[in-house]
Amino acid sequence: MAGVETAERSSGDRKAVEAVIAKLAQMFGNRLVTSRAVREQHANTLTWIDNQPPDAVVFPQSTEDVQKAVRLCAAARVPVIAFGTGTSLEGQVNAPRGGVSLDFRDMNRILAVHAEDLDCVIEPGITRKQLNEHLHDQGVFFPIDPGADASLGGMAATRCSGTNAVRYGTMKDNVLALKVVLANGEVMTTARRAKKSSAGYDLTRLLVGSEGTLGIITELTLRLSGIPEAISGGMCPFPSVEACCRATILTIQSGIPVARIELLDALQVRAVNLYSKLALPETPMLFVEFHGTVAGVAEQSERFAEIAREFGGGSFEWATRPEDRTRLWEARHHAALSSKALRPGAHIVATDVCVPISRLAECVVETQRDITESRLLAPIVGHVGDGNFHLTLLVDMADADEVARAKNLLERLVERALAMDGTCTGEHGVGQGKMKYLEAEHGEPALAAMRAVKRALDPLDILNPGKIVALG
Amino acid sequence: MAGVETAERSSGDRKAVEAVIAKLAQMFGNRLVTSRAVREQHANTLTWIDNQPPDAVVFPQSTEDVQKAVRLCAAARVPVIAFGTGTSLEGQVNAPRGGVSLDFRDMNRILAVHAEDLDCVIEPGITRKQLNEHLHDQGVFFPIDPGADASLGGMAATRCSGTNAVRYGTMKDNVLALKVVLANGEVMTTARRAKKSSAGYDLTRLLVGSEGTLGIITELTLRLSGIPEAISGGMCPFPSVEACCRATILTIQSGIPVARIELLDALQVRAVNLYSKLALPETPMLFVEFHGTVAGVAEQSERFAEIAREFGGGSFEWATRPEDRTRLWEARHHAALSSKALRPGAHIVATDVCVPISRLAECVVETQRDITESRLLAPIVGHVGDGNFHLTLLVDMADADEVARAKNLLERLVERALAMDGTCTGEHGVGQGKMKYLEAEHGEPALAAMRAVKRALDPLDILNPGKIVALG
Repeated sequence: MAGVETAERSSGDRKAVEAVIAKLAQMFGNRLVTSRAVREQHANTLTWIDNQPPDAVVFPQSTEDVQKAVRLCAAARVPVIAFGTGTSLEGQVNAPRGGVSLDFRDMNRILAVHAEDLDCVIEPGITRKQLNEHLHDQGVFFPIDPGADASLGGMAATRCSGTNAVRYGTMKDNVLALKVVLANGEVMTTARRAKKSSAGYDLTRLLVGSEGTLGIITELTLRLSGIPEAISGGMCPFPSVEACCRATILTIQSGIPVARIELLDALQVRAVNLYSKLALPETPMLFVEFHGTVAGVAEQSERFAEIAREFGGGSFEWATRPEDRTRLWEARHHAALSSKALRPGAHIVATDVCVPISRLAECVVETQRDITESRLLAPIVGHVGDGNFHLTLLVDMADADEVARAKNLLERLVERALAMDGTCTGEHGVGQGKMKYLEAEHGEPALAAMRAVKRALDPLDILNPGKIVALG
Repeated sequence: MAGVETAERSSGDRKAVEAVIAKLAQMFGNRLVTSRAVREQHANTLTWIDNQPPDAVVFPQSTEDVQKAVRLCAAARVPVIAFGTGTSLEGQVNAPRGGVSLDFRDMNRILAVHAEDLDCVIEPGITRKQLNEHLHDQGVFFPIDPGADASLGGMAATRCSGTNAVRYGTMKDNVLALKVVLANGEVMTTARRAKKSSAGYDLTRLLVGSEGTLGIITELTLRLSGIPEAISGGMCPFPSVEACCRATILTIQSGIPVARIELLDALQVRAVNLYSKLALPETPMLFVEFHGTVAGVAEQSERFAEIAREFGGGSFEWATRPEDRTRLWEARHHAALSSKALRPGAHIVATDVCVPISRLAECVVETQRDITESRLLAPIVGHVGDGNFHLTLLVDMADADEVARAKNLLERLVERALAMDGTCTGEHGVGQGKMKYLEAEHGEPALAAMRAVKRALDPLDILNPGKIVALG
């Protein structure tokens, strides 16, 4: 397992941090916590990156609380790291230089729901399941579903997406506006509730995906969708990963507005069978879901079934009853977790890349070959409608040789995706884990532009420093 | 009509510009033009903002040409203004400090079409009609349609949208990546061809809508859509603007994936009748269009017709034959032009705002009342599915009192939109015309952030200076 590392600092820095913590304690009372266990929880990372705990954790209850904490930290040049539910996958919440973690657990209110406008205004700590439970009676929902029951603030900060991004887009498409505490403690609102605007630079999209390095989100205005009249889901086995990908390409090209289209490779299906006590055929499969009117969903399903047959798809299993659909999608959602069943006790390292869909089959097949040649175990699931797929590496961290082989595999995975005009991460984000790939992906001028923007908005480098771009 | 203004400069600045022009002449030969007529064309503005011509116009043929021109200008601190087709509406291409206009007319190649991936790579000078003509045989199209046959570079730079944004989104949703010449002459690519990415700050969206103030677009990767199997369009008269808006809200809320839903007020319908020799009932109307399968389009049309009836919609006129649809939409597209028929010889000033859809009826009705009370003539068209609407003011520019009343009307229009949590511009952009509203809309911290970003990427303030945010 990953080790715990304490930030290395000069005694001057140490003193500054202690002074800040003393002042925070006065302000926040028992909403400031410094116990080691809590600090380590707030540096949660599901990779092999070391756990780097912050010096303290504060639980703000308002934008003003966040302003106070940021101003104190800024004055002493102490890092501030926003924390949602800690489900990010690339070390986004680690504190390599120590500092104060702001845990948004208590800022989880729904401030307004405007069903007519299909939007809502919320605090960042609410999770997507909590939000959707609240919205359900009003006939609307927030569609982005990354699997984990993440906080909306964290989802925006990492520009996450998930299974139904193919239809509803990613967080960049579903955040209308943000309220943000800047590095100087001022509060900025990035946009109004209008559905579109050309009024100046797109600060909303600049903040979405910035992982807390440009500002700290304290309020979100989200775009909602109407709950579809009908939903139909199903799964279909295919003779090969390539057949799955070809069927997906034709589905997208035909304009079938599929809401989810998910690939599971044979190994992943075996894991799901083990974990969820199912007896699915252990061959590559597509899980699909359609949203629309009753007639529309029926038509989409038929058209998809035709396409599936064309590529050798086997007998289709449909689930139209909500409880059957839930079971089917729970199997898919537990893919990562279920992978553990393949190798109890192994450490899980999840990673993702995204390529143009025409290169997807090639990319997945080459990756599977690489996994085999590397003598590793790594089932694959993919949001294939977007060309995005995940590897769940199952690694024995005590075996140095295996760890080295796994790390090399990930390097080659990113190289492969970049060579195909893809990206080193479709939805997990950069954090600490993928910083090293950004130059190869974007080139130095773009990286210089990112650093310039970071410096412009956070000149003291106190907002989640050492993530995305390092100012050195 | 608007006057012509020459940039005021010191003799030192004058010399610097002349030296740059001499060097550009050596580089570009007859692709450098300094005639007054051509310069004035390149400061085209359809508002009452004065025509402020650049000192010279260059016609680049490659990214390298743009780099050369920018480097020369940067060294002498001479402004550089990107120019597409000059159809922007807020003085975006004006040259208040003189400088060099880069006209992308000759950079209009299609570099690649990836039909399987639903994307294409193009140069910025190609117009949307040229692009769609080329794409047609491959079963794909680029959906954004601002009315004018604008260049794609300009459309991205102004974050434009138009009639079918309600279904397909705006330019921010349909640009996958940009190649950009930065203020220092370096070339940056903002993203790869993958459909989504979480790899760092969203430079693509930062550049889209930046109106040439942060970088000069020399290549675009666009997201394409499949040409729908069936398209059906129609128009329906309503008893009031409010009824039109109510029907629109219910249509959107019901999840009917309407491709276009356009409001014309009674005065606009009269203008269309006069201009296009039609005999439509002169009452508020909705023009709608549905895209999908044959069955899907039929179902959408029926559902919409039901909703229309609920709000007193009159007899529906459908057009399923392409030629009828074209005529119907040409009438809509020529709305601005047709307005001239209401008052031959008048000057046209087009403006737009956007509000949450629940406030739309109220906003349009109050605006109509204000127009009447101001003794002005201004038909209204709206992309009402997005809460976005346009005023086409018909002004006698020789009548100072009328001009003053018109300017006051526009001030109140923006105030009204902002009071309703809307934006001062849904799609026309800021240019020079709407700079004064940005602080009221976004607040000083957001404006300071925009200035900081501008300074970070263009420290010498040479890229389209005096637009969006002024560095002073």
